[in-house]
Amino acid sequence: MLGTLREEKVFKDPVHKYVHVTSPVIWALINTREFQRLRRIRQLGTSFYTFHGAEHSRFSHSLGVYEVARRIIAQFERNRYPGWPREEGLLALAAALLHDLGHGPFSHSVESVFNVSHEDWTCRIIEGDTEVGRILAAVDPAFPRKVAQVIAKTYPETVVVNLISGQMDADRMDYLLRDAYFTGVNYGAFDLERILRVIRPHGGHIVVKESGMHAVEHYLMSRYQMYWQVYFHPVTRSSEIILRKIFQRAKELFAAGYRFAFLLDPLPKLFRGELAVEDFLRIDEPLMQTVMMRWTEEADPVLADLSARFVYRRLFKYTAVAGPDDPAVERMRERLAKRGLDPDYYTEVDYPTDKFYDMYKPGHPGTKSPILLLTEKGDVVEISEKSLVVSSISAGSQQQGTHYLYYPEEMTEEAV
Amino acid sequence: MLGTLREEKVFKDPVHKYVHVTSPVIWALINTREFQRLRRIRQLGTSFYTFHGAEHSRFSHSLGVYEVARRIIAQFERNRYPGWPREEGLLALAAALLHDLGHGPFSHSVESVFNVSHEDWTCRIIEGDTEVGRILAAVDPAFPRKVAQVIAKTYPETVVVNLISGQMDADRMDYLLRDAYFTGVNYGAFDLERILRVIRPHGGHIVVKESGMHAVEHYLMSRYQMYWQVYFHPVTRSSEIILRKIFQRAKELFAAGYRFAFLLDPLPKLFRGELAVEDFLRIDEPLMQTVMMRWTEEADPVLADLSARFVYRRLFKYTAVAGPDDPAVERMRERLAKRGLDPDYYTEVDYPTDKFYDMYKPGHPGTKSPILLLTEKGDVVEISEKSLVVSSISAGSQQQGTHYLYYPEEMTEEAV
Amino acid sequence: MLGTLREEKVFKDPVHKYVHVTSPVIWALINTREFQRLRRIRQLGTSFYTFHGAEHSRFSHSLGVYEVARRIIAQFERNRYPGWPREEGLLALAAALLHDLGHGPFSHSVESVFNVSHEDWTCRIIEGDTEVGRILAAVDPAFPRKVAQVIAKTYPETVVVNLISGQMDADRMDYLLRDAYFTGVNYGAFDLERILRVIRPHGGHIVVKESGMHAVEHYLMSRYQMYWQVYFHPVTRSSEIILRKIFQRAKELFAAGYRFAFLLDPLPKLFRGELAVEDFLRIDEPLMQTVMMRWTEEADPVLADLSARFVYRRLFKYTAVAGPDDPAVERMRERLAKRGLDPDYYTEVDYPTDKFYDMYKPGHPGTKSPILLLTEKGDVVEISEKSLVVSSISAGSQQQGTHYLYYPEEMTEEAV
Amino acid sequence: MLGTLREEKVFKDPVHKYVHVTSPVIWALINTREFQRLRRIRQLGTSFYTFHGAEHSRFSHSLGVYEVARRIIAQFERNRYPGWPREEGLLALAAALLHDLGHGPFSHSVESVFNVSHEDWTCRIIEGDTEVGRILAAVDPAFPRKVAQVIAKTYPETVVVNLISGQMDADRMDYLLRDAYFTGVNYGAFDLERILRVIRPHGGHIVVKESGMHAVEHYLMSRYQMYWQVYFHPVTRSSEIILRKIFQRAKELFAAGYRFAFLLDPLPKLFRGELAVEDFLRIDEPLMQTVMMRWTEEADPVLADLSARFVYRRLFKYTAVAGPDDPAVERMRERLAKRGLDPDYYTEVDYPTDKFYDMYKPGHPGTKSPILLLTEKGDVVEISEKSLVVSSISAGSQQQGTHYLYYPEEMTEEAV
Repeated sequence: MLGTLREEKVFKDPVHKYVHVTSPVIWALINTREFQRLRRIRQLGTSFYTFHGAEHSRFSHSLGVYEVARRIIAQFERNRYPGWPREEGLLALAAALLHDLGHGPFSHSVESVFNVSHEDWTCRIIEGDTEVGRILAAVDPAFPRKVAQVIAKTYPETVVVNLISGQMDADRMDYLLRDAYFTGVNYGAFDLERILRVIRPHGGHIVVKESGMHAVEHYLMSRYQMYWQVYFHPVTRSSEIILRKIFQRAKELFAAGYRFAFLLDPLPKLFRGELAVEDFLRIDEPLMQTVMMRWTEEADPVLADLSARFVYRRLFKYTAVAGPDDPAVERMRERLAKRGLDPDYYTEVDYPTDKFYDMYKPGHPGTKSPILLLTEKGDVVEISEKSLVVSSISAGSQQQGTHYLYYPEEMTEEAV
Repeated sequence: MLGTLREEKVFKDPVHKYVHVTSPVIWALINTREFQRLRRIRQLGTSFYTFHGAEHSRFSHSLGVYEVARRIIAQFERNRYPGWPREEGLLALAAALLHDLGHGPFSHSVESVFNVSHEDWTCRIIEGDTEVGRILAAVDPAFPRKVAQVIAKTYPETVVVNLISGQMDADRMDYLLRDAYFTGVNYGAFDLERILRVIRPHGGHIVVKESGMHAVEHYLMSRYQMYWQVYFHPVTRSSEIILRKIFQRAKELFAAGYRFAFLLDPLPKLFRGELAVEDFLRIDEPLMQTVMMRWTEEADPVLADLSARFVYRRLFKYTAVAGPDDPAVERMRERLAKRGLDPDYYTEVDYPTDKFYDMYKPGHPGTKSPILLLTEKGDVVEISEKSLVVSSISAGSQQQGTHYLYYPEEMTEEAV
Repeated sequence: MLGTLREEKVFKDPVHKYVHVTSPVIWALINTREFQRLRRIRQLGTSFYTFHGAEHSRFSHSLGVYEVARRIIAQFERNRYPGWPREEGLLALAAALLHDLGHGPFSHSVESVFNVSHEDWTCRIIEGDTEVGRILAAVDPAFPRKVAQVIAKTYPETVVVNLISGQMDADRMDYLLRDAYFTGVNYGAFDLERILRVIRPHGGHIVVKESGMHAVEHYLMSRYQMYWQVYFHPVTRSSEIILRKIFQRAKELFAAGYRFAFLLDPLPKLFRGELAVEDFLRIDEPLMQTVMMRWTEEADPVLADLSARFVYRRLFKYTAVAGPDDPAVERMRERLAKRGLDPDYYTEVDYPTDKFYDMYKPGHPGTKSPILLLTEKGDVVEISEKSLVVSSISAGSQQQGTHYLYYPEEMTEEAV
Repeated sequence: MLGTLREEKVFKDPVHKYVHVTSPVIWALINTREFQRLRRIRQLGTSFYTFHGAEHSRFSHSLGVYEVARRIIAQFERNRYPGWPREEGLLALAAALLHDLGHGPFSHSVESVFNVSHEDWTCRIIEGDTEVGRILAAVDPAFPRKVAQVIAKTYPETVVVNLISGQMDADRMDYLLRDAYFTGVNYGAFDLERILRVIRPHGGHIVVKESGMHAVEHYLMSRYQMYWQVYFHPVTRSSEIILRKIFQRAKELFAAGYRFAFLLDPLPKLFRGELAVEDFLRIDEPLMQTVMMRWTEEADPVLADLSARFVYRRLFKYTAVAGPDDPAVERMRERLAKRGLDPDYYTEVDYPTDKFYDMYKPGHPGTKSPILLLTEKGDVVEISEKSLVVSSISAGSQQQGTHYLYYPEEMTEEAV
């Protein structure tokens, strides 16, 4: 199964033009049930309610990450850079392809309610008794574990880890370009070929030639634009809030013994926290959408109303507030309570920072590995020491956010 | 409700950059349940199995058709062309927006099994007791009927009809560009602004200045490329064939009294041919996908196997044959029958012509209204009289197709 | 001559797709000798030696500035913004079109040698006895003066001035997009339609809705990228340095009575500082290139060598130094002097700041009018107060430059 | 000098993103005087008067042809196709780079007046005592001759010849994309990567896999569009006609002993047909433009008027006629003669077919080598046998042209 396919396979891809597959292992992985399931999970969750083009799947993103990794590795090999371990090529490609395998439907919203983690599920699928697991084990019995380690960032060959998940990795490079393409927010695009020309494997890191600093600045500014224009868009946040509240309500009702008029297996196991791998793999976005569509007719008025809001896109409105303690928040909660609405389900103060730790914050313990510049003398320095633009984005990202109060506008009489 | 919104609304659109809405009627229509439902119907059905980017919805296409129509009308009004009835603007825009409202899930495959027609459903929704129907009736009680007439091509002001459905209409202009964008097949793109510059309302038609003939040739060649590269792609046909056979089998089983382990309302009504508008509106692609996912576990082996093929993308392979009577077809049917497989469910000879009547065929009774050139002297001539390229595409399209035999490769021992 | 053309004229433009002309005055101005002359002046001077696509002319840029101004004004008029004086439309368009009329060949290099200014020449041509002057005067005898005032920033209606020359004006918007397009440096592109949506005329300024702040940040980052990647590219600087030294040498030789083997009228007048408008209009880049080609054969070895360097692209190499006082500079000068080469002609320490005053520097006297944000409450604040990205680019731009020593590599034995 | 550069060199190119150079021979060739001279020759001659973006040089086109050839060869080598002679790589790249070296200024117009041929000049420069010739001879004394043979299509290894000049060669592939990019006529673009995927070296030809037939059809339709929209544009033809007449007049005057007020060496040698290689290399477009600018002041009224028409873009108008014998032509000639204008200099009937022999015409003796399809069985068939689109374009191209009569509108009283 090692070696190369008799004839290269290609996928037509709007972002990278073609995705090229020559390894039979990669080809077999793509054709597994578990990988095909990613077609039924959107890359950007509920963002399609803000940007109607954003229906693209994690399947397409995963192929894209694989392709970016393949091009980076090809560039490293063509230039015979000493820092790249050639024997790790297949491992790196497999990890790139499979890194999102454990994403469930609308994962950012759902994970927080059920305390699950897509990284864990990814590793369980890879090391489990699955089609993917069997293909990997056929390469070498230790191979599934290695792939899981790369994804879990515990693999000792750190350059492989950093290729897949660093501050400027194949994952981010694909999703920025892809999300920009499908939303139509073209200011999120950056020049991938320019980046490929300036990166090098070096001391276990993927570093950037100092002369390529402006290319990295451009990449980071593209990321900055995507965060503010797309990922933190308040309409998307509104739909995520509603989705989260739907599942909070359903979980609460289930715990209280409520008899659902409609419920599909394996959701009870999800509510009880007892999902096995084979259960997990049956949950996808069509199932969740079908369930919520039916819940619009549930007897519980909160579940029914919130589900209808989501399905028919009757989202919460939002207004800027000073913070969670702004008196306007309490006033809104009281107004809703007077109308018989539970304020915990009908309001939320949101401040989009959860993804911000991805942005570079030097010295912060939770931060991802920094972007490093390789000077002409061969030294390595962290980019924010050289680039005022990067250091200011890092420093300033925290303070630019706005607290928004989300609420059901048509259920309130007066303006806030 | 007539008049204009206080502030123009826009949708970010990857194809047209922005979709602009100034009419409160249009804005209200977009926010109805029925229109939002189009988010849950893909524009290209099963094509996402061939082109992974093709997950775009009929919602985005419908907004796009509206936007193209809006630009054409704006161009006509700015130039004060006498052939355009200014008072019909809102009617034209509403029809453009709503023309696909009656599409069900995977409609091309499903309609043929259940003998339904999306055009009929569109008109029933528009004239029915629906959110859309009420908004249209608020404009004028006769308005829903007018919109339905435009879509059904029976409205007397034919220039409005031709704007929405002719050989070079807002519908086609959007879908060619949009399908090219989302599949990544960029050779399907044409220059919309150039077309806008050369079209004119004239004698109830949308005609083309003769000097713009090459622009039309380019548009038609883009269409030609899209047909061969995308719409007729054999992998897409394979997934459509499987889908059709799944629903044929389910319908047959239902008629025979089979007890489905899983079935969701209102599918029984669909099987019995008794769908009401409110039932129809509950059927979307997530529901169909959820049902087929469950059917992979049905007791009936044909339904279970075909459903698994669709859900996990284990499609039929294909091989060129001379036609339905090619002896290779019968040999394949026999081989499958020997293995206990019903050849009617496991083979199909397909020849992609069903959409070909859309291509221009002069003098053919079923043909759409032709594309007309307006000469400098003011005469109108049909384009294939002037353009060898167009006449050859029209004449030749018939003979270029290939008959393919579809079959389950791994269930047969020998090659065909 | 006022009014509109019977049929709109268009120019096919790679950047804006089409440039639309409806005013007979604008049409007549484009067809003058003086405006057509801009075809023979490159937009980016010697940059074509670094980016071979950068052969685009000031003619195309000038049409582009006109087109951007036209779109901005159309947007203002469509929305009926009170801050825009509708009667000034033609004035604004004429000024946009003509603002670069006084650029000579390779103007950035040549102007510094001969102490001329393209702004002065522009006004002299506009108010002079020229085809342009006569067309403008036919509109109204005061019109040429008004156009010149807008370009000279002394026109009392400041919103018209700011439309053409501010920190975010039609001039910059066109040149960033155009220079990005023709060099191929696509990271210089920004989203013009997005900017058009967020700007407003307000209090004599073109301001930006606060919600559009990120759009401005993106525009400024595009500018930042263009400065570092294109405008300050050391290879371009090298060719500009050589060009400047050629003309310094020629001027010096002329003053010293040297007998040129080749000299074309009206260069002697240029050397003597006695150019009249009609002389100025005869000097274009083909003339300068022809003269330099001949000067490769002049008896004066400095003039001949420098000219050959320019014509055959044998540019000076460069190396980073600490500043003009870096000892490496003096060492290089001595080494060249020993070989009989005049160090004043064969070295230069360059630090690219001359265009930096264009970047926004709050509180700096020489600065262009700032970019202003319009808050939801209707206040106006300068953007760097709100945007950390902008303030850091402004603050940091100064310190990021590098001093480079330029020198003729092959004429020195040792490395620096 | 063989081998590879220590570090790959790249040129930023708007069409191909980057042009990559690894061979020291190619690098040295690019830096010769003769190759740098191509910066001063426009790729599209006078087309910039129709499409203002079309200022791109033959230098950029030549780099582009080299780059396309490099990618094709890389594709052939990566797939180890047996039909490609690996040892001919450098020869093919050098020929691709240098194939246009002998183009003079505005060559299509000028060559016909002076009976010179750019192919001849290319070979004379390559085999002559030039910088290019010396670099090639350093590879191998026989190498300059081989390069010249490839360009002259006499080299025995025909697959190398066909790579550079066939119906679908590196030359055409670059110029279609490049001319589309710089004119802004984006419907001339085709999908280069798709073409690269379907071509194969086979039996001394570059053939196309049958499954890639639609890709070739798209490429040929792009060519068709470029011919009609760009290369045959009547405004471009008008400027070419004027240019040709200027040089006819100058040649005639020179032969008659006219004393030019302005003439630059080596034009007298050109007029006498006595140009040597070193003379030829001194003639470029800046020289021609400078000369014509001066000729606007010549005593000969025809030369002065025609030169002013060209320099200030006061082109001839055009009107459709039935052919050279249309009575309208003779009437126009008489009208001009009555006004004292020589009709031979002031009229021309033009029918753009001269480039049409490039289009595919099966069986026609003057035709270029056909495009061949490689069937699945391994047979080779000429494409027009399979493709109705191609055969119709070939057949129809002849009859679609229009005869235009060009004339100086403002010098005639009545309309034609």
